[in-house]
Amino acid sequence: MQLTLLQLDNYGPWTVTPSPRRETDLQSLQARLYADFADFVGREDGYAFFDRFDNIIGVTNGIDRAAHERFQEQIRNQYPVTASLAVGVGETPIAALGTATDKLQHAGSAQDPNRTEILAVDETIGHTDGEMTIAHFDIVDVTGSYTDRQNAAKTTLTVQRTTLELAEYMQVEHDSIARFVGGDNIIAVCPALDRDAFDAARTAIGDRTGIDLQVGVGRGTTAHDAGYRAKLALESCRENGHRVQQFSRQVATE
Amino acid sequence: MQLTLLQLDNYGPWTVTPSPRRETDLQSLQARLYADFADFVGREDGYAFFDRFDNIIGVTNGIDRAAHERFQEQIRNQYPVTASLAVGVGETPIAALGTATDKLQHAGSAQDPNRTEILAVDETIGHTDGEMTIAHFDIVDVTGSYTDRQNAAKTTLTVQRTTLELAEYMQVEHDSIARFVGGDNIIAVCPALDRDAFDAARTAIGDRTGIDLQVGVGRGTTAHDAGYRAKLALESCRENGHRVQQFSRQVATE
Amino acid sequence: MQLTLLQLDNYGPWTVTPSPRRETDLQSLQARLYADFADFVGREDGYAFFDRFDNIIGVTNGIDRAAHERFQEQIRNQYPVTASLAVGVGETPIAALGTATDKLQHAGSAQDPNRTEILAVDETIGHTDGEMTIAHFDIVDVTGSYTDRQNAAKTTLTVQRTTLELAEYMQVEHDSIARFVGGDNIIAVCPALDRDAFDAARTAIGDRTGIDLQVGVGRGTTAHDAGYRAKLALESCRENGHRVQQFSRQVATE
Amino acid sequence: MQLTLLQLDNYGPWTVTPSPRRETDLQSLQARLYADFADFVGREDGYAFFDRFDNIIGVTNGIDRAAHERFQEQIRNQYPVTASLAVGVGETPIAALGTATDKLQHAGSAQDPNRTEILAVDETIGHTDGEMTIAHFDIVDVTGSYTDRQNAAKTTLTVQRTTLELAEYMQVEHDSIARFVGGDNIIAVCPALDRDAFDAARTAIGDRTGIDLQVGVGRGTTAHDAGYRAKLALESCRENGHRVQQFSRQVATE
Repeated sequence: MQLTLLQLDNYGPWTVTPSPRRETDLQSLQARLYADFADFVGREDGYAFFDRFDNIIGVTNGIDRAAHERFQEQIRNQYPVTASLAVGVGETPIAALGTATDKLQHAGSAQDPNRTEILAVDETIGHTDGEMTIAHFDIVDVTGSYTDRQNAAKTTLTVQRTTLELAEYMQVEHDSIARFVGGDNIIAVCPALDRDAFDAARTAIGDRTGIDLQVGVGRGTTAHDAGYRAKLALESCRENGHRVQQFSRQVATE
Repeated sequence: MQLTLLQLDNYGPWTVTPSPRRETDLQSLQARLYADFADFVGREDGYAFFDRFDNIIGVTNGIDRAAHERFQEQIRNQYPVTASLAVGVGETPIAALGTATDKLQHAGSAQDPNRTEILAVDETIGHTDGEMTIAHFDIVDVTGSYTDRQNAAKTTLTVQRTTLELAEYMQVEHDSIARFVGGDNIIAVCPALDRDAFDAARTAIGDRTGIDLQVGVGRGTTAHDAGYRAKLALESCRENGHRVQQFSRQVATE
Repeated sequence: MQLTLLQLDNYGPWTVTPSPRRETDLQSLQARLYADFADFVGREDGYAFFDRFDNIIGVTNGIDRAAHERFQEQIRNQYPVTASLAVGVGETPIAALGTATDKLQHAGSAQDPNRTEILAVDETIGHTDGEMTIAHFDIVDVTGSYTDRQNAAKTTLTVQRTTLELAEYMQVEHDSIARFVGGDNIIAVCPALDRDAFDAARTAIGDRTGIDLQVGVGRGTTAHDAGYRAKLALESCRENGHRVQQFSRQVATE
Repeated sequence: MQLTLLQLDNYGPWTVTPSPRRETDLQSLQARLYADFADFVGREDGYAFFDRFDNIIGVTNGIDRAAHERFQEQIRNQYPVTASLAVGVGETPIAALGTATDKLQHAGSAQDPNRTEILAVDETIGHTDGEMTIAHFDIVDVTGSYTDRQNAAKTTLTVQRTTLELAEYMQVEHDSIARFVGGDNIIAVCPALDRDAFDAARTAIGDRTGIDLQVGVGRGTTAHDAGYRAKLALESCRENGHRVQQFSRQVATE
């Protein structure tokens, strides 16, 4: 499992220099930079999570150092800020991200003006032969039960609470990273996990929040391969009323 | 208080038609569309929250129907999806967003393929003379205490939990909308609230999460006016160690 | 007639500092900045021409100083370069652009590192009550005669020569600005001109290049109003085989 | 030499369906799509020319079929239009582009609504081992002589005429493609050409237009490699007053 951590260099201070910059300009800047990052990893079958926007996470199995360096150059040439990138390889997503985080922390503080454009890459980058599991969750009938019924503010809090509980559960129980990706969709990047693990996750989140989740699960050598299968499996849930569906040839040809 | 709710038309089904679309392409699409929305409201001193990306919130005091219509046209001409927009006016952010939500729900389901490009505008749009309060929160010493020390995954969960607890507290206690805007920043749009209310909010979130928040508070007739003052006040917290700072002339000239 | 000249500050030197920047990054930067400019003027019914990309032209009748200032702020916050803006008002497009050019030249050289973020605005900005004429030209049957038949390189030169001859003719004869806007489309911004003027332009360009142009002509108080009518009139040419068509109610309801 | 021709599918009709779309929205759409194309080829050391915006040219040595397919998917998922792509390999740029053009024309008309998302690739794609020459031209002292002195409209025509004459000359004499890339910069993609060829080009354009050009010339196996050397050589011209400079180790270390 290979993860990339992008960290904007000394970003907080920049946003208030020489005086606080307009919030919507910052929102727009962050969103476009994230979109560029999603395009960067997506073209080589990776996945992207906006995370905190000044810290962005990529699942980057198979993406090499040169591609990361090229993306760093693109940010430098097209944005008013620069970015540091660290790439970690590990048995689990949390281990890989831990390695990446260590590399940046070792290079200096995120707000050290002299720590810019770090490119810290695990030696084993690109040699990630194993498979990963992607689980694509959503809320059963979110449109009918929430979006079309409640104040939009309330629905958002429902989705946020579900996301947080699931993210904490998957991190603690399975060393996995689960993140919100829009709508009512939450994607978890996991080591090899069986069907029971996802059943237990659904139950735990249901107990904590009262929310009914469904999940499609796929495996593959890249995030896109695994995630595409997870999407197909989730489609099968939507059509057949299953709550956990692992990808199989049958799902693919339904 | 005037809020705008943007809802992508029948977006969920589109993302899986004819088969699931690549996740990073969707991430990039959503982020760029949000960036365009932030530019749209920002040019007239509004604020934007990405919310769930298929549902986006704007604080749009003073922005008229024609400007909303023009933005809807821009989406239609530049994206593969269309958007419905509802504008609500109310005494509080939750009331205004409730009105906006009602308008869209009344027009049909978010997944009704025949409900496209609704533009449902409260009659009182543009006539929002009162002042609003913006509170700009962040976590005390987030870089030194978290970003530079912990696994990035853990720091993100810390920020997410803080955001969720604050959003729920502000919604329940003050009919306000608080949303994550990147880094460790959370912005709350509020009716008139005094200093004690923010002290109590800090204390409540500290009790629930153990996280120490600081907050700058500003008032104004637009989100940008109020929010800019809040940013100046928050800068004053950072420099002087205060935990709650309301904007005043003294803050401005420090 | 009100025109805006945007000039990137000290851009040439920036592109080679500290060493030449990657060409595709510059292409992408320029194109996105132009897209943002087009959105900026378009939301208030203006028109935009990419011109030389480091110099961009807008037809900005009715767009005030504050909106220009806000756009300048957006560039500063979202790009690694800054922009100067000058706004000129005149009886003709060339006169208005001349005034705008003078203002920037008077403020210093385009490559003076100390001349940044000029905002030089004609006092009469926003008070442009008169009508303008927009003429929207294209090449008769460009797809059948060129695109589907010739090497793409040759077709491009055909379109470029047509553009250049038309731009020079309209500038010399009518103090007008004609620019390529994509495909085989050329848009001319003109003072009041009658049908004979466009007949003569077609004939002159036909004589010089052998290319057969058709043109729709519209009048209005903004570029969009005039230009939209020109587009409707050009559609009428395409359907009815006319070579010059002025907008009229009949065109609108065809 | 490997060139890619991108052609938007049935774009002209789309721009007027159901009625003419706002010009600035089209300008913005085209520019952003071009920016994405520039990022796509640039990440693998290619070059991009906006050409006619609905027809875009890439120099794509070494970029394989899968990468082209992935870009086509990105356009489909992020834009309201789709694109066809043809890739041609040839001894010269014009030959390569001719092959690419033939492939699209053979597949159907650019305005055939049933001809969508063609991906027509020369069998020899990716096997382009030879070197190419990039020549990077600009106008001697354009800022001092033109930008800072003349009406911006006049300077633009000067640059346009220079571009057109140079493009026609390089196409006819050397089977090369020369295109405007912003400011006063013109880039020519060429087969192997010696110094005399560029001297002669300068002289010819000087005779036709009165404009004094300087040019840096580089060779390499990708457009970026060759083009970066050309940029260094052009910098040497700017510093030393030479009019034609070929890249050499001496230039690199000046």
